Amino acid sequence: MTIYDISEKAGVSIATVSRVLNGSANVSEETRQRVLEVIDKYEYTPNAFARGLGLNTMRTIGIMCADSSDLYLAKAIYYLERQLRENGYHCILCCSGYELKTRRESLELLLQQKVDGIILVGSNYIYEQEEQNKYILDAALTTPVMLLNGSLDAPNVYSILCDDYTSVQEATNRMITSGIRDILYFYNSNSYSGKKKLYGYRNAMEEHGLKPTEVFFNGTHEDISGMTGQLLKLRENGQVFHGLIAADDMLALAAVKYALTLGLRIPDDLAVIGYNNSILAQCCYPELTSIDNKLEALCQHLTDTLMDVLTDNYGIKNTMFSGDLIQRGTTPKL
Amino acid sequence: MTIYDISEKAGVSIATVSRVLNGSANVSEETRQRVLEVIDKYEYTPNAFARGLGLNTMRTIGIMCADSSDLYLAKAIYYLERQLRENGYHCILCCSGYELKTRRESLELLLQQKVDGIILVGSNYIYEQEEQNKYILDAALTTPVMLLNGSLDAPNVYSILCDDYTSVQEATNRMITSGIRDILYFYNSNSYSGKKKLYGYRNAMEEHGLKPTEVFFNGTHEDISGMTGQLLKLRENGQVFHGLIAADDMLALAAVKYALTLGLRIPDDLAVIGYNNSILAQCCYPELTSIDNKLEALCQHLTDTLMDVLTDNYGIKNTMFSGDLIQRGTTPKL
Repeated sequence: MTIYDISEKAGVSIATVSRVLNGSANVSEETRQRVLEVIDKYEYTPNAFARGLGLNTMRTIGIMCADSSDLYLAKAIYYLERQLRENGYHCILCCSGYELKTRRESLELLLQQKVDGIILVGSNYIYEQEEQNKYILDAALTTPVMLLNGSLDAPNVYSILCDDYTSVQEATNRMITSGIRDILYFYNSNSYSGKKKLYGYRNAMEEHGLKPTEVFFNGTHEDISGMTGQLLKLRENGQVFHGLIAADDMLALAAVKYALTLGLRIPDDLAVIGYNNSILAQCCYPELTSIDNKLEALCQHLTDTLMDVLTDNYGIKNTMFSGDLIQRGTTPKL
Repeated sequence: MTIYDISEKAGVSIATVSRVLNGSANVSEETRQRVLEVIDKYEYTPNAFARGLGLNTMRTIGIMCADSSDLYLAKAIYYLERQLRENGYHCILCCSGYELKTRRESLELLLQQKVDGIILVGSNYIYEQEEQNKYILDAALTTPVMLLNGSLDAPNVYSILCDDYTSVQEATNRMITSGIRDILYFYNSNSYSGKKKLYGYRNAMEEHGLKPTEVFFNGTHEDISGMTGQLLKLRENGQVFHGLIAADDMLALAAVKYALTLGLRIPDDLAVIGYNNSILAQCCYPELTSIDNKLEALCQHLTDTLMDVLTDNYGIKNTMFSGDLIQRGTTPKL
C-alpha cells in the first residue's frame, strides 16, 4: 500500500494525501475523512499514520548499503552514524544486497519506519535504465534521499560524490610521466563509479598514445586469492606489465601479493596504485599508494546537507569532491 | 514509558500487560480496558501498540553492534543479515558506540520499532557489574535477546559464543611445543572475550613454567602504525621475543610489519598468530596464521536458534563453539 494507492482509492491527488498525513490545515474535513478511511481500510503503515497524527519524529535516518562487510561501505556507515548521532539522530541500517527486488523491499521497510531521511551508500544504487531508478524517485516523494557516490537528478534527491574519473585519470597520467608505460587496469565493478574510474584510466592511456589493458575480475570483493591467481595466469600467458592501477585496495593488494609471489621488486619491477585509501593500504609491506576519495569529508558534507534539508528545506543538490593520491611504498615518487 | 510503568500505573502485573499486548484471551475485559487506557494516556510506543492490536509482525530483527567499521563486527552483520533474509526477516541495524548511555538509547530505539528479536553483536555488551546489564534484561522482558560472543544467564536471553579461552590456550601450547618459548601476547581489549583470550595465553605459559609477557595497545582498533610503533619501541628497549600471539588479526599484521621493518625473517625469527581468521589474514605476505572463531557458523546457529524461539518458544540457551588454528606462512608447522 503506497501513497499512490491511497490517492487513487480516495480519488484525490497525492499532494492531498500528503497534506492529510502531515496534518495540514488546507484540506476540507470531508476530504480528510475520506483519505483517513482509505488509510484505515487498507492498513496503511501505522508509523506513517502516527506521523500523520502529529506524533513526534523519532529523529532517525535510514541508511541503506548493499553489503555491510564491504570495507568501504562499512567505513561510510561508521562515519555517517557518528555524524548523525552528533546531530541528535539515530541511524537504522538495512543491508539491501545487490538485487533491485531486495532493494525495493529494503527501502519500503525503511519508509515504514519513521525515518526522517534516507541515505543510499554506494554508486551501485543508480541504474543505467531510468525506469529502474523509480524506486528512488518514489521514496523521494515523502522523504529526502541522499546519494553517497551516486548521482541522480530528481526532486528531493541530493548527490555527494568523489570525482572518480579525474582521480584515476590523474594517477594514470602521473604513472605514465614517471616512465611506466605498460600499465594494466584491474577492476571488478561496472557500477556508475566503477565506469568513471575505468574511463579515467582509458582516457589517460589513449591521450599518451598507449593501448589500455583492462582486466576484469569476476569474483567476490574479498576473493584475494582469486584476484592474485588471475594476475599470475596473465603472466603465465606471457603478459608483462610494470604498472598496475586497481579499482580498489583489495585488488591492489592482490597485485602486491602477485609481485611478492614471483619475487618481483616493488616498485622497481611493478608499481601499484590502489583506490579508497582504506585501512588495507597500511596492512601490507611495502604500504600501498592509493587514491584517497575523501570518504569522511563526503560523509560529513552529506550529513550537513541532510541537516539543512531537514531544518529549512534547502540543501545543495550536487557536490563533487576531488580525490588525492596518497603516495606510499608501492610506487616510485610520482 | 516502559512495560514496568504501565504495569504500575494500571495496578496489574507485567505478565498481564504482556498478555494484553500479545492479545491473549486470558485477561478479563475490565483489566484489558484498564491497561489499554494507561497505554493510550501515556502514549506507549505506537508499534508495540500496533502489535498489541494484532497487526501483522513486520518480520524484522534489530541488530546492535558497537562500530560497524570494525572488520569482525561488519562480517558478523553481513552473515546475520543474509541468513535472516533467507528466513524471510529484514534486519535493522543500530551502531551503538561503546558507551552504556548510547547503548541504552539504541536498544530503546530498536524496541520502539516493531522488531521480533534483538541481536547484540560483540562481547563488549556484557558488563562485569551486574546492574549495568539491566538494559539487556529489560529488553528481554518483551523481545528475545541473542548475544553473539557474549554470555548472560537470564530469561529470554540466548548466548552463542566461541571458546576463546581454549582456542588461545591451545595455540599458545602448540607454539611452545614447537620450541618457541619467549612468546609475547599483544592485545587491545578487556571485554569478556578479550579477557578469556588473555587468560588462555597466561595459563598456557604458566603451565609450561614460562613468564607471560602481556602488552596492551591503548589505541583504536585500526591504528596499525601505532601498534607497529609500540612493538618497535619494545625492541629498542631491549625486549626480544620470537613468538607473538595477537588478540586480533590487525594486531598480528602490525607484528608482521614490525618484523619486516627490522628485516626479521618470518617465521624463523618471529612467528605470529592472529585471531579471527579475517580477510586481513590473506592480505599480507607471508599470509597470517590465525585462529578461526567460526563466525559464520556462530551466526548461522544464532539465526537458527532465534527462528526456533520465534516459532515455538524453545531455543538452546547457551552454545559454545571451538576455534580452529588455520596455519599459514607466519608460523612454522605447529
